[in-house]
Amino acid sequence: MKTCPYYTLVMLAGVEARGFIFGPPIALSIGAKFVPLRKPKKLPGEVISEEYSLEYGTDTMEMHVGAVQYNDRVLVIDDLIATGGTLCAAIKLIERAGAEVIECACVIELPELKGRERLGDRPLFVLVKG
Amino acid sequence: MKTCPYYTLVMLAGVEARGFIFGPPIALSIGAKFVPLRKPKKLPGEVISEEYSLEYGTDTMEMHVGAVQYNDRVLVIDDLIATGGTLCAAIKLIERAGAEVIECACVIELPELKGRERLGDRPLFVLVKG
Repeated sequence: MKTCPYYTLVMLAGVEARGFIFGPPIALSIGAKFVPLRKPKKLPGEVISEEYSLEYGTDTMEMHVGAVQYNDRVLVIDDLIATGGTLCAAIKLIERAGAEVIECACVIELPELKGRERLGDRPLFVLVKG
Repeated sequence: MKTCPYYTLVMLAGVEARGFIFGPPIALSIGAKFVPLRKPKKLPGEVISEEYSLEYGTDTMEMHVGAVQYNDRVLVIDDLIATGGTLCAAIKLIERAGAEVIECACVIELPELKGRERLGDRPLFVLVKG
């Protein structure tokens, strides 16, 4: 296994559930730790949570307290970026813990929904634009 | 990437959601395809489903029609085996599609709940007995 060359440890956060499929192989390949961002009441320990908007209604994302630390550099992985609401919630959770989101990556982007614009200066890597 | 040495293609089925974390790295390492076994109404295509018992109530697991084929040899991955109900539902789904479950693998087994006995002759690999 290669060790990640970044200055501080890189964590890789995957959004439940399809981010769990794509995240761990990437985490292993770069030597990063995997952090699950889960649906409510799935994580056994103390959590911080972030509510976000869906097309109809809202949902909540949770992360274990201590899963990322101050100054950690974090990659966020999901399968799809549409309006960007889910990735924005992930970014808020990670930044509230004092860590930095250095990049987001998705398999598919739906560019007409302009989710990329909501990520600010953070780079977004995608494999397919749908 | 190594190619799987088995006679017929090996598929690796992971149970949502924590089986999604452990399954794909193993699938990649043996050159197997990954099949998600999902909670109800998550898969976009035609599915077959299997109801199973939880400690309180029931749940349902779904698999895409065609995800595994007749005579495919399938590994089933989950994070934990307790009473074995979830793994038994996974086995039934896969066998209803005409494929064969050649092994199950979990990170943790709770031996006092005797889930292993419900798997019949199918081998169960675990890393930790809790």
